[in-house]
Amino acid sequence: MTAMRTEHDLLGDREVPADAYYGIQTLRAQENFRISDVPLSHFPRLIEALAHVKRAAARANRALGALDAERADAIDQACREIAEGALHDQFVVDMIQGGAGTSTNMNANEVIANRALEILGRPRGDYEHLHPNNHVNLGQSTNDIYPTAVRLAILLSFPALTAAMDELIDTLRAKGQEFSGQLKMGRTQMQDAVPMTLGQEFDGWATTIAEDVERLTRTARLFTEINIGATAIGTGITSDPRYGKLAAQELTELTGIDFVVAADLVEATSDTGAFVTFSGVLKRIAVKISKICNDLRLLSSGPRAGFGEINLPAVQPGSSIMPGKVNPVIPEVVNQVAFEVIGNDLTVTFAAEGGQLQLNAFEPVIAFNILESTRVMTRAMRTLSERCIAGITANTEVLDDYVRHSIGLVTALVPVLGYAASTEVAAEALRTGRPVADLVLERGLLDRAHLDTLLSPEMMTTPHRPTATGSIPSLDGATQDG
Amino acid sequence: MTAMRTEHDLLGDREVPADAYYGIQTLRAQENFRISDVPLSHFPRLIEALAHVKRAAARANRALGALDAERADAIDQACREIAEGALHDQFVVDMIQGGAGTSTNMNANEVIANRALEILGRPRGDYEHLHPNNHVNLGQSTNDIYPTAVRLAILLSFPALTAAMDELIDTLRAKGQEFSGQLKMGRTQMQDAVPMTLGQEFDGWATTIAEDVERLTRTARLFTEINIGATAIGTGITSDPRYGKLAAQELTELTGIDFVVAADLVEATSDTGAFVTFSGVLKRIAVKISKICNDLRLLSSGPRAGFGEINLPAVQPGSSIMPGKVNPVIPEVVNQVAFEVIGNDLTVTFAAEGGQLQLNAFEPVIAFNILESTRVMTRAMRTLSERCIAGITANTEVLDDYVRHSIGLVTALVPVLGYAASTEVAAEALRTGRPVADLVLERGLLDRAHLDTLLSPEMMTTPHRPTATGSIPSLDGATQDG
Amino acid sequence: MTAMRTEHDLLGDREVPADAYYGIQTLRAQENFRISDVPLSHFPRLIEALAHVKRAAARANRALGALDAERADAIDQACREIAEGALHDQFVVDMIQGGAGTSTNMNANEVIANRALEILGRPRGDYEHLHPNNHVNLGQSTNDIYPTAVRLAILLSFPALTAAMDELIDTLRAKGQEFSGQLKMGRTQMQDAVPMTLGQEFDGWATTIAEDVERLTRTARLFTEINIGATAIGTGITSDPRYGKLAAQELTELTGIDFVVAADLVEATSDTGAFVTFSGVLKRIAVKISKICNDLRLLSSGPRAGFGEINLPAVQPGSSIMPGKVNPVIPEVVNQVAFEVIGNDLTVTFAAEGGQLQLNAFEPVIAFNILESTRVMTRAMRTLSERCIAGITANTEVLDDYVRHSIGLVTALVPVLGYAASTEVAAEALRTGRPVADLVLERGLLDRAHLDTLLSPEMMTTPHRPTATGSIPSLDGATQDG
Amino acid sequence: MTAMRTEHDLLGDREVPADAYYGIQTLRAQENFRISDVPLSHFPRLIEALAHVKRAAARANRALGALDAERADAIDQACREIAEGALHDQFVVDMIQGGAGTSTNMNANEVIANRALEILGRPRGDYEHLHPNNHVNLGQSTNDIYPTAVRLAILLSFPALTAAMDELIDTLRAKGQEFSGQLKMGRTQMQDAVPMTLGQEFDGWATTIAEDVERLTRTARLFTEINIGATAIGTGITSDPRYGKLAAQELTELTGIDFVVAADLVEATSDTGAFVTFSGVLKRIAVKISKICNDLRLLSSGPRAGFGEINLPAVQPGSSIMPGKVNPVIPEVVNQVAFEVIGNDLTVTFAAEGGQLQLNAFEPVIAFNILESTRVMTRAMRTLSERCIAGITANTEVLDDYVRHSIGLVTALVPVLGYAASTEVAAEALRTGRPVADLVLERGLLDRAHLDTLLSPEMMTTPHRPTATGSIPSLDGATQDG
Repeated sequence: MTAMRTEHDLLGDREVPADAYYGIQTLRAQENFRISDVPLSHFPRLIEALAHVKRAAARANRALGALDAERADAIDQACREIAEGALHDQFVVDMIQGGAGTSTNMNANEVIANRALEILGRPRGDYEHLHPNNHVNLGQSTNDIYPTAVRLAILLSFPALTAAMDELIDTLRAKGQEFSGQLKMGRTQMQDAVPMTLGQEFDGWATTIAEDVERLTRTARLFTEINIGATAIGTGITSDPRYGKLAAQELTELTGIDFVVAADLVEATSDTGAFVTFSGVLKRIAVKISKICNDLRLLSSGPRAGFGEINLPAVQPGSSIMPGKVNPVIPEVVNQVAFEVIGNDLTVTFAAEGGQLQLNAFEPVIAFNILESTRVMTRAMRTLSERCIAGITANTEVLDDYVRHSIGLVTALVPVLGYAASTEVAAEALRTGRPVADLVLERGLLDRAHLDTLLSPEMMTTPHRPTATGSIPSLDGATQDG
Repeated sequence: MTAMRTEHDLLGDREVPADAYYGIQTLRAQENFRISDVPLSHFPRLIEALAHVKRAAARANRALGALDAERADAIDQACREIAEGALHDQFVVDMIQGGAGTSTNMNANEVIANRALEILGRPRGDYEHLHPNNHVNLGQSTNDIYPTAVRLAILLSFPALTAAMDELIDTLRAKGQEFSGQLKMGRTQMQDAVPMTLGQEFDGWATTIAEDVERLTRTARLFTEINIGATAIGTGITSDPRYGKLAAQELTELTGIDFVVAADLVEATSDTGAFVTFSGVLKRIAVKISKICNDLRLLSSGPRAGFGEINLPAVQPGSSIMPGKVNPVIPEVVNQVAFEVIGNDLTVTFAAEGGQLQLNAFEPVIAFNILESTRVMTRAMRTLSERCIAGITANTEVLDDYVRHSIGLVTALVPVLGYAASTEVAAEALRTGRPVADLVLERGLLDRAHLDTLLSPEMMTTPHRPTATGSIPSLDGATQDG
Repeated sequence: MTAMRTEHDLLGDREVPADAYYGIQTLRAQENFRISDVPLSHFPRLIEALAHVKRAAARANRALGALDAERADAIDQACREIAEGALHDQFVVDMIQGGAGTSTNMNANEVIANRALEILGRPRGDYEHLHPNNHVNLGQSTNDIYPTAVRLAILLSFPALTAAMDELIDTLRAKGQEFSGQLKMGRTQMQDAVPMTLGQEFDGWATTIAEDVERLTRTARLFTEINIGATAIGTGITSDPRYGKLAAQELTELTGIDFVVAADLVEATSDTGAFVTFSGVLKRIAVKISKICNDLRLLSSGPRAGFGEINLPAVQPGSSIMPGKVNPVIPEVVNQVAFEVIGNDLTVTFAAEGGQLQLNAFEPVIAFNILESTRVMTRAMRTLSERCIAGITANTEVLDDYVRHSIGLVTALVPVLGYAASTEVAAEALRTGRPVADLVLERGLLDRAHLDTLLSPEMMTTPHRPTATGSIPSLDGATQDG
Repeated sequence: MTAMRTEHDLLGDREVPADAYYGIQTLRAQENFRISDVPLSHFPRLIEALAHVKRAAARANRALGALDAERADAIDQACREIAEGALHDQFVVDMIQGGAGTSTNMNANEVIANRALEILGRPRGDYEHLHPNNHVNLGQSTNDIYPTAVRLAILLSFPALTAAMDELIDTLRAKGQEFSGQLKMGRTQMQDAVPMTLGQEFDGWATTIAEDVERLTRTARLFTEINIGATAIGTGITSDPRYGKLAAQELTELTGIDFVVAADLVEATSDTGAFVTFSGVLKRIAVKISKICNDLRLLSSGPRAGFGEINLPAVQPGSSIMPGKVNPVIPEVVNQVAFEVIGNDLTVTFAAEGGQLQLNAFEPVIAFNILESTRVMTRAMRTLSERCIAGITANTEVLDDYVRHSIGLVTALVPVLGYAASTEVAAEALRTGRPVADLVLERGLLDRAHLDTLLSPEMMTTPHRPTATGSIPSLDGATQDG
C-alpha cells in the first residue's frame, strides 16, 4: 500500500502519494484532464522553461525583499536541478488541459515547493514553511508565468529544428555540388521545358530551406517579448512596479536570451499573435518540405515506367507481394509529418481565435501543437537528410537521354534560328521522335560546332546571349546584335 | 436627377429611389455591408428560394385566415414572378452581411411588397396598404425564414452539380470502355507495380465520382428538415401552432421537395450541422477531383521526359518562350477550384463553430460559401468533361512498352516459379535492363505458351489462380494445386 | 547483454533480439520512422483489427487449400490470442510511417509468425517452417490488408465514442427535464430575444448530439465495404477469384460486422473517400460540442459581472492570485479537444488529396488522425458529462429576473397590442429601465389576468395564437380572430 | 453583327471582335476558364502591375538594343496608359485559370500590342509589325513575368489595408483616451477577475492591430525579391545576362519600390514561400480582428440579460418580429470576413503545397485569394472603424456597478489582509451578495481611507505595491515593507 499525505485546497482535503513531489492541485488536474495521455514531461524544454521562469521570479522577489534568502535559495536550487533534468517525471498533468495553464503552473509550483522543502530538511507537504502559492508563485499569476514559460520553451526547442534544417541544407548543397555537371530536363506544369543541371535542382531546395531558417529565427524573436509582471490581466495588480523588468533581467541572465517586457501588458496578456505567426512559419516549412518530397518521389519514380532520374537509397523492403520493389518511404513519412504540422496550425488558429476578453484560455493546446510540430518536424528533417538525401544517386544515362531527345532543346536555338524555323524543327521532332540536333544538322540550319556551342551545358543552364557562331560569349561580349 | 420616395424605419427617414422595388432597410444594408460586391442576385437559386418560401408563408397565412385574400393573392403573384426570374436585379444586398440574414429577408420582404402593391394598383412605398413586415413577413422571423430559404437554395442548386458529375462519369466510362483493351503498368507509391488496363483506371475514376453523387444526394436530404414556424428562437412565440406544418406543406407543393418541420425547433434554429456536413461532402468531392487531376497531369507528363501514357487535348498554346509546348491547363484549373472548395469548407467550419446560444449569426457567410462552392465545382466538372476527358487519347506504344519492359511482370509468375526464382529473375532484369519474359525463356523456366498465358492481359488484370500449364483457368478450375 | 537471432531480408542480415516476436522488417521500420513516438500499440483496436483480418485470411486460405491445416491452425490461434489482448507490446512501429502501411502489415506478419512458430514448438525466426510473408501474408498485399484493418479498427473504436455521446445525451436530457419549468431569456446575436425554458436549451443540446450519433453510425457503415482480395492494385493479380469474398465472410463471422467486398476494387484500393467523410463527421461533432462549451462558458460567466445563469461544478481551484475564483476548466478542455479534431481533419484532407494513381501512400497518417480524434473525443465527451453537465445548477433568481425585466417580453404582446403600441412600450422600458408588465398595466392596455396569460411560460415558450382574453387557447381554439 | 478580325496561333485561326484590344489567346482562355466570373479587371492593382512590369521589360530591352526605339516607345506609352487606368475592361480572363498565369500574361501582351499598334497608326491584329510575343513579351516568360506582376500587385494593394488598419487604430486609441477614466471589471476565462479601465481594453485592441501593421509591412518586403530574367525555369535560357538586373532597376524607377533580383533564380521561380507567409499574416490579422469583434459583441450583449457594458451604434433595425431589437451587425460582418480570410489562407496553402518541380502551376489561385483577402479585409476594417467603433458609448452605471459589487476587488486587498482573511471575505461576499468593501469595513479590517486608497482606480489598474496606510505609493516608495 502506498503511503499517503493529506493536502488541502479550496475544494477540501485529498490524499497525495507521500513520495510525490507534486501536490493536491496537480492531482486534481490529472484526474480532470484525462485526454491525450501526453504529460507535460513529454516536452523537456517546457519543464526547463518553467524552472527558469520560476527561478527568475524567485531571484527578482529576493532582490525586492519580498522573499527571504532561505526560501529564495531553496527555490533557486530546486529550479536549477529541474532545469538540469531532475524530477521531470513529476510533471504529470496532461498537455491538453482546461484552465489556461493554471494546472501546469501549479504542477511546477508544487514540485518546486516540495523539492525546496526537502533541501531545507523539511517533509513534503509542509507548506506552512514554504508554500507553492505564497512563496514559489509569489508575485506571479498563471496569466503571466505560463505564456512566458511557453515562449521560452519554444525558444529552447526551435534551435534543434534549425540545426536539423542546417544539416538538411548542407546535405542538399553537397548533392548540388556532386550533381553540378549533370544536365537534365527542367519541367514546368509537368511538361518538358528546358535543360538545367541536377545540381541546380538540389541547390534550389537548399536555398528554399535556408530562407526558412532565416524566417524561423526572425519570427522566434517575437517570443522574447514577455508579459512577466502583468499578473492577472496585464494591469500588474498588487505587483511591485519594479518586479517585471527585474524578473525579465534575471531570466535573460539564466538563459542568455534577451527578454524584454511588453509595453502594453494588457494586450500582451491576451494576445496570441506571436504563436499564430510562428505556427504559420512552421506551416510554411511544412509546405516547402512536402513539395520537395513530392519532387523526390516524382524524380525517383520508376524504375522503368516513371521519370527514373534519381535513385533514393533503399531503407527497407517495399512489398511482400512484388519481389524487388523498393518504395520512397522516407519522403512519404516526411510528407505525412508536413500534413500533421499543417493540421496543427489550424488547431492553433482556432484556439487563437477563441480567446476572449483579457485572456486566451486555450493557450495549452496552442503550446502543445507548436511544441509537437517543432518536435516532429525536427525528426523528419534529420530523417530526410540522413536516410534519404545523403544516399541519392543519379541515373546519368536516363538524364542525358532525356536532354538529348528533348524537343525543349529547340528553345536554346530560337534566338539564332528564329521562332518560325524553330517551330518547324520542333514539330518534326515531335512527329518523328528524332532528336532536335539531328534535324537541325540535316536541314543545314547550323554547323556542328555552332550547334554544340548552343547546346553546351553552360549556354543552356545560365543566362547567355547566343552568338551567331560557335563560341560561348563572355558577359562582356553580350551585345545588341549578339 | 433620380426621383426619390421617402421611407421610414426604426432609425428614421431615408430617401429611396422612386423606381426601386427594394426599400429603406435594403438601402441601409447595402450601405452597411460594402464587402464582397457579390449581391444576392449572383445566386438566382437563392432569390427563387426566397420567393418560394415567402409564397408558401402567404398561402399558409391565408389558409389560417391571418392574411386576407386580396393581399395574399398579390403577394402570391409577386413571389411567383420572382421565382420565375423577375426582379432579381432588385436583390442588391451583399452576400456577406451582418444580422444573421435579416437584410436578405428584408430585401425580399420589400421587393415583394412593392411588386404586390404594384399588382394592386398602388404606388411603391404605400406600406399602409401592404407592409413588408406586417404582411409579407407575417408570422415569420428571419431566424426561420432565412435558414429555410438557404436550404431550399442549396436543394435547387446542387442538381446542376450532380448533372455535371453524371456527365463526367459518362465521359469517364466511355473512355474506360474505349481503353478497356489497353494494358498499362499500375503504380503504387510512384513505383511500377503490376499491370492493369487503362480502362480500369478510367473506370475507377468514374466509380469514385459516382459514389459522391450518391453521397451528395443523400446528404442534401438533410436540408428537407426545416424550422419554419420556429419564429425567433424556436419556441414559436406568437405563431399559430398549425402554421409551421402548413407552410411546409405549401412549400412542398410549390417545389416538389418533401419538406418536414424539425421536431426540436429550438435546436433546429441554432444548429448548422447540415451545412457543415454538406460542405464536408463538397470537400470530399474536391479532394477526389483534385486527385484525379493530379493523376491526369502525371500520366500526360512529357512528351518525352515524363510518363507520356496519355495525351490531353490541346486547348490553348502553352508558352511564348518554348515553341510547341502544350500544358494541362484544364486539370490545373480544376485543381484550383478544388482548393477553393476546401478553403470554403474551412470558412464554413469557422462560421459554424462561432454560433452562439439560440442562433448562428454567421449563416450568411455559410450560405455564400456553400452556394459558391457548388457553383464553381459545377463549372469545373463540366469543363473537365468537355475540354479534357472527352478528348484524351492513349499512347499505345508507350503503354505497351512499359508493360513489356516492366520488372513488375514477375509478380504474375510468382505463384508458378516461386518467390526465390522470381526474385533472381527480377534482379537480373533490373541489372541488365532486359525484359523479364526473355530471361524466363532463356533460363528455361517456362515454355513460350505457358509464359504467354501467364502474361496474358486477362490473367494479369483480373483475379486468377495461375495454372501450371498454358491455359487460362476458368473459375471452376481454380483449385488448391492450381 | 541481450541474446540475439539473425534474420534476413532484401537488404541483408540483421540481428533481432532473441525474445522479440517481431522480426527484421519491423526493426528496420522502427529505425526508419522515429517520428511521433506513438507506437501501433497505442491503439489496441488497431492491433485487434490486424489480428482479425489476418485470421480471416488464414481461414480463407485454408478453405481454398492454399494453406495446410497445421500452419493455418497455428496462425489462427496466434491471431485469436492477439485479438484478445496478447503481445500488443510487440507492435512497436511508429503510427506515422512511410510505406503505405507495409511496416504495420509486416509487424503483424512477423509477430503472428513467431507466435505461431512457438505454438508449433518451433523457435522464433524459424521462417523456413512458417514464414511471415509466404504463410501469414499469403494471398494478401499491404494494399488490401492495411485499409481493411484500419477500417475495422475504426469500426471497433467508434462505439466507445457513441456510447460517450449517449451518456452525454442522457445527462443533458436529465438536466432538460430538471430545468423544464425554469423560464429564461433566449438570445439571438448576443441580444436579448424572447423567453424560453432552460430545459429547452439543454434539450436542444441533447438533440443536436443525438443527430450526430445517428450520422456517425450511418457514416461508419461506409467502412464495411472493404477491398480484401484486391492484392496490389485492385486487379487481384495472383489471387484466387473466390478468396476475397471468402475472407470477407470469415471476417464477418469473426467480428459480427457485415463486410462486403467493393465492386470496383481498383477504385477501392486507391480511394480514401470514406475516411474523409468520417473525419468530416468527427469535425461536425467537434464544431457542435465546441459551440455547446462556448455556450456553457457564456451562461456561467460571472459570478457577478456576467450572465450568471448557471453554475458549473467546481472541479479545481481557479487561480492562485485571485481568491475564490473558479473557472470553467472542463468546457475549456473540451473546446481544445474540438480544435484538435478540426486540425486532425485538415491533416486527413491533405493526406487524402495527396494520394496518387493506384494507391494512397499516406493512409498511415489518416489512420492515426482518425483513431486519435475518436479517442480524445470519446474522453472529452465523458469528461464533459461526468465532471460538468451532471453537476450544473441553475441560478433561479437571476434567470427569473432577466425574464421579468426583459424588453423582449413585449414580443409576446404584439399579436394583441399591435406593433405600434408594443414599440412604444419597448421604448419606454428601455429608457426607464422599468418592467414591460408594469408599463402595460399602468397604461391600461391589458388587465392583469390577460397579461398574466400572455406572459405565462406556456404561452411564451410554445406556439400559441394569443387570445384576446386571459385564457390559454387549446390547439383547436386557435382561430382566425384569436 | 459584330465586325471580326482573324488571328492565328498554334491551334489555328479564330475570329476576334474587331474592336477588341485583346487577341486570340485571350479569347481561348476566356472560353477555357468559365469558372469564377471574376475577371482580371476586378483587381485594378493587378492590371497596373502587369503594365509596370511590361513597361520595365520594354525599357530594359531597348537599353540592351534588343528592341528598337519605335516599338519600345509605343509599348512604353501603351503600358503607361494602362497603368494610369486605361483599357482595364480588356482584361477579361478569369482570375481562376490554368496555365500558371500564361493567359494573364498573354492577355496583357495582346492588349499592349494592339494599343501600341494603334499608337503607331496600325490596325489591331497587325502583329507582323508589333507582336504580342516577339516584342511585348521579348526576353520574358510567364514564369518570371507573372510572379513579378503578382508580387507588385500585392505591394500596390496592401497599403490600402494598412491605411484602413491605421484608421482603426486611431479610432480605437481615441476611444481608449475617452474611456481612460472609466473603471470596469477585467475578465479571464469568462469569470470576473480584477478591475481595469475601459480605456485599457480599447488601447489593447489598438496595440494588437498596430503590431500587425508592422508585421504586414515587414512581410510585404519579401515581395521585393523578384525573379525577372529567370525566363522559363530560372536558368535564364536565351536571356541577356544583363537583362534581369536592368529590368528590375527600371521597375524600381517606375514604382518607387526597391526591387532586387533573387540570387537563386531556379528556387525563386518555383517557390511560393513569400505568398504563404503573407497569407499567414493576413490570417493572423483575421484571427485578431475576429477576437476583437467577439469581444465587442460580448461587451455589448444585453440590453438587460447580458454584459451591457458598452453600446454599439444602431446602423439598421434588428428584427421584424421583436420590436426595438438592435443587433451588432457590423462586428458580425467583420467576423465573417475574418472567416473568409482564414479559408482563403487554406486555399493558398493547398496551392503552394501542390507546386511541382520547376514551377507552381497554381499561382493564379494564390494571387486571387491574397488579393481578395486584402480587398475584403480593407473594407471590413474601414466599416468597423466608421460604422461601429467611432460611435461606441459606455454604460457608466453598469460598469461602475460591476466593479463595486465584484468579489474580484478582494485581490487588491490580499497584500494587506493576507490570503486567508481575503478568502473569508470573498466567501461571505459570494454567499450574501454583499459588496466586498462593506464587509471589510464591517469587520474592521481596514479603515475607510485605507480601503479607498487600495480600491482607487490608480492602485487597481497599474502596478503598485500596496501600502499599509491610506496613501498611494510613488514608484520610489515601493519598498519591501510597503
